[in-house]
Amino acid sequence: MELLIPLDSQSKKSLYEQIYGHICREIREGSLTAGERLPSTRMLAEHLKVSRSTTQMAYDQLLAEGYIEARPYRGYFVSQLDGLFDAIPESRQQMRREEPEGEGYLVDFSPRGIDLDSFPYNVWRKISRSTLVDDNREMFHAGSPQGEPGLREAIRGYLHTARGVKCSVEQIIVGAGNEYLLMLLAQILGSQRRIAMENPTYRQAYLVFCSLGYPVFPTEMDENGMNPEQLKASGADVAYVMPSHQFPTGIVMPVGRRQELLRWAEDGPDRYLIEDDYDSEFRYRGKPVPALQGMDRSGRVIYLGTFSKCIAPAIRVSYMVLPPQLVERYQAQAGFYASTVSRIDQNILYQFLSQGYFERHLNRMRAIYKAKHDALLEAASPLETAFQIRGEYAGIHILLTSREGRREEELISLAAEAGVKVYGLSRCDIGAKREMETSTVILGYASLTESQIRMGAELLTSCWI
Amino acid sequence: MELLIPLDSQSKKSLYEQIYGHICREIREGSLTAGERLPSTRMLAEHLKVSRSTTQMAYDQLLAEGYIEARPYRGYFVSQLDGLFDAIPESRQQMRREEPEGEGYLVDFSPRGIDLDSFPYNVWRKISRSTLVDDNREMFHAGSPQGEPGLREAIRGYLHTARGVKCSVEQIIVGAGNEYLLMLLAQILGSQRRIAMENPTYRQAYLVFCSLGYPVFPTEMDENGMNPEQLKASGADVAYVMPSHQFPTGIVMPVGRRQELLRWAEDGPDRYLIEDDYDSEFRYRGKPVPALQGMDRSGRVIYLGTFSKCIAPAIRVSYMVLPPQLVERYQAQAGFYASTVSRIDQNILYQFLSQGYFERHLNRMRAIYKAKHDALLEAASPLETAFQIRGEYAGIHILLTSREGRREEELISLAAEAGVKVYGLSRCDIGAKREMETSTVILGYASLTESQIRMGAELLTSCWI
Repeated sequence: MELLIPLDSQSKKSLYEQIYGHICREIREGSLTAGERLPSTRMLAEHLKVSRSTTQMAYDQLLAEGYIEARPYRGYFVSQLDGLFDAIPESRQQMRREEPEGEGYLVDFSPRGIDLDSFPYNVWRKISRSTLVDDNREMFHAGSPQGEPGLREAIRGYLHTARGVKCSVEQIIVGAGNEYLLMLLAQILGSQRRIAMENPTYRQAYLVFCSLGYPVFPTEMDENGMNPEQLKASGADVAYVMPSHQFPTGIVMPVGRRQELLRWAEDGPDRYLIEDDYDSEFRYRGKPVPALQGMDRSGRVIYLGTFSKCIAPAIRVSYMVLPPQLVERYQAQAGFYASTVSRIDQNILYQFLSQGYFERHLNRMRAIYKAKHDALLEAASPLETAFQIRGEYAGIHILLTSREGRREEELISLAAEAGVKVYGLSRCDIGAKREMETSTVILGYASLTESQIRMGAELLTSCWI
Repeated sequence: MELLIPLDSQSKKSLYEQIYGHICREIREGSLTAGERLPSTRMLAEHLKVSRSTTQMAYDQLLAEGYIEARPYRGYFVSQLDGLFDAIPESRQQMRREEPEGEGYLVDFSPRGIDLDSFPYNVWRKISRSTLVDDNREMFHAGSPQGEPGLREAIRGYLHTARGVKCSVEQIIVGAGNEYLLMLLAQILGSQRRIAMENPTYRQAYLVFCSLGYPVFPTEMDENGMNPEQLKASGADVAYVMPSHQFPTGIVMPVGRRQELLRWAEDGPDRYLIEDDYDSEFRYRGKPVPALQGMDRSGRVIYLGTFSKCIAPAIRVSYMVLPPQLVERYQAQAGFYASTVSRIDQNILYQFLSQGYFERHLNRMRAIYKAKHDALLEAASPLETAFQIRGEYAGIHILLTSREGRREEELISLAAEAGVKVYGLSRCDIGAKREMETSTVILGYASLTESQIRMGAELLTSCWI
């Protein structure tokens, strides 16, 4: 029996997911019936011109979920579906969850996407292999709780030269994502804290603080960032800020405001600033803005960085730089927590950094994102009569605010009719809505090609102007 | 210049760490002086008969820590050490931290060690390569927060057949280690909880509960495990237990006691049992004891399992099975947390499980650990006149209790003089000391060879009898 499976090499779904999904549907819709025999993975691979491992992965998942069964020496057969009905909705749901929000749109300006086409897969594979060489077995023994010394030294070197962060390796803690590091930080700072956040802000961090049980005080911003008067008034003792490129507004906090915030921290006995430096690698005009942490003379800044944005979301590695007095608290109160990052992965990343691949990758991505950024600004220029563009020249998204105060909902639905997904600024709102939010949309461009960006901008012009 | 580096292939330290350590010392002690040129990685590799990647890793770490510097086209040279004194203590401390506690002993009966000599490194490498094949790029995109569907289905299948755990994949959450999963669980259960723990118990879990701010009630055990009367009296609403093979006592909780604990949980509106099934894979006599979770009819058991013990500590993958009503709370209160395990690693593990390697590995390890267990019991038989042996026939450690009530400290120091490291039971104590603890030592045997085990037991006999 032959399977005709239409494969789309442009799809965000991998080939194996497409093959898996197709056979799933065929079975659920009854086009493939119980007891029917499937082609061998080898035959199917030749037939579809894909690698054997691809068809094997698709069959493995079908087997794991019970859609098909393997009979020794005979091959793969469609299963009786009775009693499988727990598994099916789950797997459907999972598949949905893994689809990008914008599925079905011509162009999705998701602010969460990143460009993975330019990821140096071959280098990564090469390093992975060399990390698993035979005389390297200690990789499988438990490592240091704070993270591998070599990796932390490589991170220290990068932060020092690229971000002006001043720290020793003892101050760096490597962890499986910013959310985990915030959980860990909560155990260092204690439960009696009041957190101030810029409004609008990075919603994920807001959700973490809430689920950790902290009261969060949304704080207004002016054109220089978080308003220090409101911060004082809030009675907070911890402020979470993104000075280099605030998400989502794109505001870059000038030195004066940074000093005001540092003074606020120094005015209290145990006050801290959490600096989330999530996408500072990407700046397309002027000198790079050094991190706030580098200005800190009194140990009040907790610095957070991640490799999810600049390498890949699936690389679950972030890092936190603690001021010296918090390092002591960490060792006393949370030093017993084992590292959450596999030692093998830490060493792959260490090689990637210390052999210079990371710097090369960043330079490459900076050029690629700048080209996309420029393409978007150029293609969006017809919109400028009706929209103010903000947050440009840095990061991987811009903001469009309607000069006529048209509502975000209207802009989103008009765009949707034209097949373009844009995102309302209000989704980043953690306090009362403000006028600015109600007429601003976010356009992320990292995961789009330049031609998709141009098409998207043209479609938006045609439906908004 | 030639470097004579004595390499010990039996050492717990990898070859690269030995080379790194040797050159470090030579530089710090001044035998290698600033400006001196080192052999190339190729020459050193040939000279020491190790792979090039080994010498490269050693040099990379020395470079990263500033001991040596690379000059283009000229090679590697010893650095001026001035100003490096932040880095050195750190790296020393890290190296120490990575050494097993028992460094310097002839035999270390560490209960924390596991046998990694039998780990299927080639299979792991093969799977890692196939997971990183070219048409598999979606591995680098963010995955499902609960864990990859395929991996969770493979875990469900294993738990169902091997442990009698009854659940659907929706109830399984994959995370970077038990400690992280307990942090996540804390956000599902809320902060107003009182935790009861067996005493003595697994100290790491005790520390996690304390650092999460929960009051912990140490609860006495009888020969059947946690005392239900004391549990009721404690006023706790969550009980952390290890019914299949309690750590450290080795007690297997009989069905009657399990039912009593389940009834206790059902008697309260929102009571739960946390079942840590940490080493149940290893049983050497009688039928395997199914998990408590399988007896739970009212959704009161939270099941915890890990791959650290049965695969490798550096594989930071654990899993938690939530009862249905807690799945709802998880999705509402903590469903936004991204997975803490790299998607690539999850898929390597998924292949390892679904292709049958895990089962084969477990069977192999069970046989290896049983042989070590039998060797220890046989070699320790001369001790039985003076010591009661407990916790045998399961897990990877046993207990020896002095029949004459000799103090733990005395036994430990006598053993130390004979070059053997044993561990006092009181280190697992979380409440007031009890007589039993003061005269009991723990002997872990997983990471020792059978001849080391025999030598260790003979040395203990000679110094204790």
